[in-house]
Amino acid sequence: MSVVDRLVHGNGSKILLVVLDGLGGLPVKDGNTELELAKTPNLDSLAKSSALGFHIPVDWGITPGSGPGHLGLFGYDPIRYEIGRGVLEALGLGLEVTHRDIAIRGNYATVEYVDGKPIVKDRRAGRIPTEENRRITARIREHIKEIDGVEIIIASGMEHRTAIVLRFPEPLPEGSDRINDTDPQEIGKPPLKPVGENPDAERVAQVVRKFIDRVAELLKDEPRANYLLLRGFSQKPKIPTMEERFGVKPCCIAVYPMYRGLASLVGMDLIEFEGSALQDEIDTLKKVWDSYDFFFLHIKKTDSYGEDGNWQKKVSVIEDLDRHLPQLLELKPDVLAITGDHSTPSVLKGHSWHPVPLLINSPYVLGGTSERFTERECLKGELGMIPAQKIMNLLLANALRLKKYGA
Amino acid sequence: MSVVDRLVHGNGSKILLVVLDGLGGLPVKDGNTELELAKTPNLDSLAKSSALGFHIPVDWGITPGSGPGHLGLFGYDPIRYEIGRGVLEALGLGLEVTHRDIAIRGNYATVEYVDGKPIVKDRRAGRIPTEENRRITARIREHIKEIDGVEIIIASGMEHRTAIVLRFPEPLPEGSDRINDTDPQEIGKPPLKPVGENPDAERVAQVVRKFIDRVAELLKDEPRANYLLLRGFSQKPKIPTMEERFGVKPCCIAVYPMYRGLASLVGMDLIEFEGSALQDEIDTLKKVWDSYDFFFLHIKKTDSYGEDGNWQKKVSVIEDLDRHLPQLLELKPDVLAITGDHSTPSVLKGHSWHPVPLLINSPYVLGGTSERFTERECLKGELGMIPAQKIMNLLLANALRLKKYGA
Repeated sequence: MSVVDRLVHGNGSKILLVVLDGLGGLPVKDGNTELELAKTPNLDSLAKSSALGFHIPVDWGITPGSGPGHLGLFGYDPIRYEIGRGVLEALGLGLEVTHRDIAIRGNYATVEYVDGKPIVKDRRAGRIPTEENRRITARIREHIKEIDGVEIIIASGMEHRTAIVLRFPEPLPEGSDRINDTDPQEIGKPPLKPVGENPDAERVAQVVRKFIDRVAELLKDEPRANYLLLRGFSQKPKIPTMEERFGVKPCCIAVYPMYRGLASLVGMDLIEFEGSALQDEIDTLKKVWDSYDFFFLHIKKTDSYGEDGNWQKKVSVIEDLDRHLPQLLELKPDVLAITGDHSTPSVLKGHSWHPVPLLINSPYVLGGTSERFTERECLKGELGMIPAQKIMNLLLANALRLKKYGA
Repeated sequence: MSVVDRLVHGNGSKILLVVLDGLGGLPVKDGNTELELAKTPNLDSLAKSSALGFHIPVDWGITPGSGPGHLGLFGYDPIRYEIGRGVLEALGLGLEVTHRDIAIRGNYATVEYVDGKPIVKDRRAGRIPTEENRRITARIREHIKEIDGVEIIIASGMEHRTAIVLRFPEPLPEGSDRINDTDPQEIGKPPLKPVGENPDAERVAQVVRKFIDRVAELLKDEPRANYLLLRGFSQKPKIPTMEERFGVKPCCIAVYPMYRGLASLVGMDLIEFEGSALQDEIDTLKKVWDSYDFFFLHIKKTDSYGEDGNWQKKVSVIEDLDRHLPQLLELKPDVLAITGDHSTPSVLKGHSWHPVPLLINSPYVLGGTSERFTERECLKGELGMIPAQKIMNLLLANALRLKKYGA
C-alpha cells in the first residue's frame, strides 16, 4: 500500500478530471504548437490562477498506449499494472471483461488445406471490409454460443480484427491466460496449436482448441475469412478500485468503449448517455454531479486528429473545450484538473513520449506563473514535471482529502 | 529488463552524444559561469531550437567519479553497475580488462625488514617521481611475466601508483575478487596478507601472495619503492552491451584511456586515431560515420582545466567546441546531444554534484525556450532535470527507435 493510500479520508469534496486524449503537441505552424495556436480565452484565464506543469505518463522517452496512459492518470503505476492485449482489445470493442474471463485478440485469416491441414495464406484475410467482418462475426455469434460450459462472446473490430471473451462459470486463477499466440507470423506455415503453460491455462487451452476447430468448420466455405488466428490471451488484471485506494466514488463520462473499459478496470461507474458531443458529456456530468465525487471526463478527438496529422482540427477540439469551460466551472468542482493521457503531436501522427501539459485548479495553488495553458507556459508553472501516477496525490491533497503523514 | 530495453527497434538513425567532461560550472567572473562567459554563436543558435535541461548523474548532492558519470550517460544505473577501483585504475592506464582478469590498484611503498618481516615505513614510497615508477614497473614487467599460469600485466601511473591485471587462463567466477586490501593504512605495521573470502577468491589470493613475494624480492635493493601494496581487487562487471540493450551499434571517439575503457565496458567499438585535438576527433568521426549509428565523442579538457581552477582555459575549450560545431551539424545526425558526465566548477577545482546542462536536438523537440546553452538558460528548457540514465531513453525516442508501451 502506497503512502497516499494510507492517508485518505472522505470529505465530500468533488474532483473533476478532464482528459483531452493526446493533448500535448509540438510546433506545427510558425513555431507554435496546437495549444499555442488555439484561441482559448477561458483556459487562459483559468491558467493564470492555476498550478501548471507537466506529467510524464510512464517514463522519460516512453510513448504510452492508452492503457498505461490512463492507468497513470487514475493513480496507478502503469508498469506494475499491465493490461493484456486481449483485454484492451475487448474493452475497446465494448465487451465487458470480468475475473471469469479470458480475453483474446482475433484476426480473420485465409488458410488453404493441404492434406486436410490448414496452411496460412493470408494472416489478415486480405484485410476484409469491416462489413464482411460483421457478417462473419454474426455467424460465429449465432452458431457458437458455448463450449463445454464456457460462454463465447465475440465482437467485430475494423477490417480483419475481432475480440473474443471466453467466460467461464467461476473466477479463473491467475496465470490461466498463459497460452501462446496461434498466429505463426509467417505465411506458408500452419497455425500454432494453443497450449497452456500450466494446468490452469491448459484447461483454458482445451476450450480454445475446440473453439478454433468449430470456427474453422463453420467458416470453411468463406472465400477469404475462413480461419481465426488468436493472440494476446489475457485476464482482467487484479487492480484495487479507486474507491478502495482513494476513498472516492468515481464515475466515467466517455464516449469510446476503450476508455469506459479502462475506467471500469479501476472500479469507476460508467454513465450511459446519448450522443457523442462534448455538450452531451457535460449535460451528463451535470445530471450525475450530486451522485459522485470523482468525475473522469474523456475527450477523444484531440488524439484522433493528432493521429491524422490534422493540427487544425486538433486546435478546434481544444477551442471547443474552451467554449464549454464556463459550464464546467459553474459546477464549482473543489479541484479541477485538465490534462491528457499522453501527447499526440500532429507532426508525429501518433502517440509520443513528450511530457503532457497539466493544469490543476483549486483554492490552494500558487498560480500567477503563466499566461496560458500551453507547453511553453506550463514550463514556468509550479508543478514541474511529475510522474502521471502522482497526479492523483495532488488532486486528493488539493481536495483536502489527505491526512498528514507522520506526526 | 527495463521498460525501454523491451521497446527498442533499429531504424538506421544516427545518434551523436558529445560529452564535454566536467561541463557544468558556477559563477567565476561578474556572476557568470564558464558557459556564460564563453562566446558561442553556434551553440547559441542550436540552443534556440533544441530541448534544454539538466541531468543529475547519480543523485541529488552526489558528486560522481568518471565511472558512474559515464555509465549514467550510456543509459546504465550507476548505482547498480559499480566499477571496481582496480578495474577503473587499469582502464585509466590503458590496460584491457576481460572476464579472465583480476584488476588491482598498486602503490609502491617503502618497507623496512624487522626480523625478516616487512614493516611499512612510507605507504607511498615518498611519492617517487613518475619516471622512477616507470623504471621500476619496467623491471617488474621484465622479470615477472607469469605466476602459476597466470599472466601478470602491470602499468605505471603517476608518482607511486600502478595498475596490475592478473589474467587467468579462463573466465573467473563472480566473487573471485573478494580479497582484502593489503595496505595497513598506517605506518609501522606490516602489510596485510591478502586472503580470499571464498574458494574462488582464495585461488586468486594464492597467486597474489606469490606475486607480492616475487616483487618484494625483486625490489629489495630499491632505496624507496621496495614494496607493492595492493588495493581495490576487482573484476570486469557483467554489463549487458549497449547493442544488446538498445539495439545500437556504438563507437567511442576519445583520447584518454579511462573513457575508452569505460566505453569498452558497455561494448562500444574503440576507434583508433592519431592526434588528440578536437579536429582529430571530428576527422575520425567523419571517417566512421557510415559504419556506426551511435557515436560517443569525448572532450576531456573542460574537466582538466576545471580541476586546475583555470576557468579561462575551460571557457576556451567550450569556445573550441563551438567553432567545430558546424562540422558536427554537417553530418546531419538524427539526434545530437551535448552534455557533460558531471560538473567541474573551476571555483571548486574538482568534480561536483551540480546538475549538468543538457542539450538534445532532433526534429521532435519543442524548442524556443532559451537563448543560449548555459546553466541559467537550461533552467528554462523543456527537459527539466532528469536522471542521467534516462538520457538514453530520450535519445532513442527522438531517433524514433522506441515502440509504444502497451496498447
